[in-house]
Amino acid sequence: MKRWVIGVDLGGTQIRALRTDLAGEKAARAEQLTLAQQGPQAVVTRILETVQEVMVGIPREEILGLGIGAPGPIDSAGVVHDPPNLPGWKGVSLVDELSGPLGLPIYAGNDANLGALAEYRFGAGAGVDHLVYLNVGTGIGGGVISHGRMLTGWRGFAAEIGHQTLDPDGPLCGCGQPGHLEAFASGPAIAREARQALEQGRTSTIPEHARGPVTAKSVAAAAMAGDPLALELLRQAGTYLGLGLANLIHILEPQRILIGGGVSRAGELLLGPARASMEQRLMSPVYRGVEILSAALGPDVGLIGAAALVMQEAVSHR
Amino acid sequence: MKRWVIGVDLGGTQIRALRTDLAGEKAARAEQLTLAQQGPQAVVTRILETVQEVMVGIPREEILGLGIGAPGPIDSAGVVHDPPNLPGWKGVSLVDELSGPLGLPIYAGNDANLGALAEYRFGAGAGVDHLVYLNVGTGIGGGVISHGRMLTGWRGFAAEIGHQTLDPDGPLCGCGQPGHLEAFASGPAIAREARQALEQGRTSTIPEHARGPVTAKSVAAAAMAGDPLALELLRQAGTYLGLGLANLIHILEPQRILIGGGVSRAGELLLGPARASMEQRLMSPVYRGVEILSAALGPDVGLIGAAALVMQEAVSHR
Repeated sequence: MKRWVIGVDLGGTQIRALRTDLAGEKAARAEQLTLAQQGPQAVVTRILETVQEVMVGIPREEILGLGIGAPGPIDSAGVVHDPPNLPGWKGVSLVDELSGPLGLPIYAGNDANLGALAEYRFGAGAGVDHLVYLNVGTGIGGGVISHGRMLTGWRGFAAEIGHQTLDPDGPLCGCGQPGHLEAFASGPAIAREARQALEQGRTSTIPEHARGPVTAKSVAAAAMAGDPLALELLRQAGTYLGLGLANLIHILEPQRILIGGGVSRAGELLLGPARASMEQRLMSPVYRGVEILSAALGPDVGLIGAAALVMQEAVSHR
Repeated sequence: MKRWVIGVDLGGTQIRALRTDLAGEKAARAEQLTLAQQGPQAVVTRILETVQEVMVGIPREEILGLGIGAPGPIDSAGVVHDPPNLPGWKGVSLVDELSGPLGLPIYAGNDANLGALAEYRFGAGAGVDHLVYLNVGTGIGGGVISHGRMLTGWRGFAAEIGHQTLDPDGPLCGCGQPGHLEAFASGPAIAREARQALEQGRTSTIPEHARGPVTAKSVAAAAMAGDPLALELLRQAGTYLGLGLANLIHILEPQRILIGGGVSRAGELLLGPARASMEQRLMSPVYRGVEILSAALGPDVGLIGAAALVMQEAVSHR
């Protein structure tokens, strides 16, 4: 009998579903808009529709289970705790909502944690049993693999590695706390610094690369074209990123750190300064040798990780 | 047949050894001075002597193995990498040095990591599968239990949780980096702040509690007697400690955090402010509920942990 797993990513904008075999080979994929403002029940209906699309023609008994990733906070039991981009999701259990209608075992996790698992099983961290994954985008999410296993913490809320205080006098983070890594190196943080520099009269080609307001994407585009301010802004964000990575190396000592997410498309213009700053901040030479690399799996990383979670929980632990 | 394990703590001042049964019941204990300045070979000889003291009359085949803790950096293979208080220990393998003469399986680890394991198996973290242990003393060492297992990282250098940057403009840490948690909340950091305040003319009874130079111990004694400056200094250290703990909660999400080491004897005068500051710095209410408590096992925590390491590696994994 053929065996399949299903991975779902519940995002603020899109619902995506994937069916793969146990080697991670993609067999079917579907997506639709989340339309999150319609509230949890309407969204659950659309999750079910999207999942049914990737199950068409497949006998239920061939499917080992369904993994689903959602924006944190989501606990290990699959209960979503009011994430900013899913209005109304206060204590909604994805496991309860999906297991009845689908008749499948449901496993749930934080989307960035699942990103780490995906990169560990199928991406740039394959076989690296101590791994940190950062998704640098609108926020900075993270996931940790320790001893070959996804680190969840007590209730499933671990690995929020963007929310470490690097400077108590620093800018406010999206979460409301001052000086977190996310407030220095996320997309909105880079855009904020760019706008401030432009308002202060710095000359730059960044606005020419922006359609509408200046974003991290326009900063990255200008940097790739050699714009000095844009390069400086990426260097500054990379320097804070490296400081946060040095902390993580002291705390978790991964063999490899993978940077994904939209901002990571700036590539070496961000990772180069991050690496230099990380090296400079290590407490001892014994910590040298940790690799800082780009993640491999792109925007589907969360649903690949959701499928990998089924493999970890339903297959490996039998 | 009776079964025993041996735990050894190699400290900069003392070598201590313990023999326990598999329930952790202490059967024999020995100690002698390290005399670290005499170099590795002389110290290894004294380790062997101390171990032989706790093995007297016990058949070799009843002993499952020996665990040994040493100051970091020490890797998972038991190689000691030049810790400041063990001069000459550059690449000395404790496993190699001890396994031949003793004819026993040898397991080695960082002393603070083993402290976490000890508290998890036999102390204030018994049965708590997600646990952080801090030893706040001359430095701030740490250990992490995740999913019921000691978190070691790639090469064994993980859980240096005192070495997280809280403020890049902060005072220099013992490791040479600026603004680490250790530089704000360790014993020497508290003593430094006390001396600075006294030099600036603050009136206080701290000097009356000191025999010789002001230390964190004299600050704690003065605080317990109600001295306002001493209370303020512990509150300040506790506030930074709480900031570091909030970071650790976001990254590791333990159920419980245990504070041990000499400075922790200040008790609630330090832990109260740490708890308040931690609560204030949480990124979301979902992280509430993590307990900050005193560690239970006292100065022998490292050798109890070394014995527990044998139980984990030689017994549980069979």
